[in-house]
Amino acid sequence: MVKFMAKDECLFCEFTKGGRKLWSVYENKYVFAFLDINPAGKLRGHTLVLPKKHFETIDECDDAYLKELILAIKRLIPAIRAVSGAEGINVLQNNGKAAGQLVKHVHFHIIPRMHKDGIRFDENRRQPKPMELAETAESIREELKNQK
Amino acid sequence: MVKFMAKDECLFCEFTKGGRKLWSVYENKYVFAFLDINPAGKLRGHTLVLPKKHFETIDECDDAYLKELILAIKRLIPAIRAVSGAEGINVLQNNGKAAGQLVKHVHFHIIPRMHKDGIRFDENRRQPKPMELAETAESIREELKNQK
Repeated sequence: MVKFMAKDECLFCEFTKGGRKLWSVYENKYVFAFLDINPAGKLRGHTLVLPKKHFETIDECDDAYLKELILAIKRLIPAIRAVSGAEGINVLQNNGKAAGQLVKHVHFHIIPRMHKDGIRFDENRRQPKPMELAETAESIREELKNQK
Repeated sequence: MVKFMAKDECLFCEFTKGGRKLWSVYENKYVFAFLDINPAGKLRGHTLVLPKKHFETIDECDDAYLKELILAIKRLIPAIRAVSGAEGINVLQNNGKAAGQLVKHVHFHIIPRMHKDGIRFDENRRQPKPMELAETAESIREELKNQK
């Protein structure tokens, strides 16, 4: 799908302009939501929610769009739960190829879940020493100060 | 950790009241953010971001808190990227035990990622027929109408 597009075109920008109408589930001035054609797990309703303006990652996205995105997600979850019969819902958003971002237009996944459905988001956890955590927290606080 | 608490106490409510100060990375009137003591992968900086008021899932969370949460996440990502050296960032939020929610107080994970770090969020994808997608989308649109 992506391979037929020119290098400077964005697949998701195209979608917000009228593609995927059949699979669209929600739309307002800021937000477009449609079904993922490769849903995770066996349930129906895996949905992608994205801004109608192009931003690559969440930290580049305008505040106004981010607020509308999270409110749309809140609104969509009960509807997706009702349609899918999900016992749980994941909201997942990937920034960068290393994090699994395939299309460079910021988007949130809403993924309906069942117990023991084979989807694993919680592997490879480690147990760092308290000192490491304290040092890391301090470094992040310093970075935030530098942002101001 | 959780097992020593009375049934009606919330671990994360306790944290927002002053616990985890050493590992806190950000705080404002609405939001508290601190390091996950069991980070995913090998990088430093896996952070949890949560509202200072108790809500169990994202669809129960007040709009004002949700907006502040997503803006805090946006702000935290560059700081976590700088500290961790991450090549990518996942934002993950789990609703319900079936989705991997361990503490019943809505929270977002910010997870720093590297290429081939062994974390997999993208397994078990299937390819439903277009008709199934169209039907599901229509059902979700109907549910949204009923919400109004």
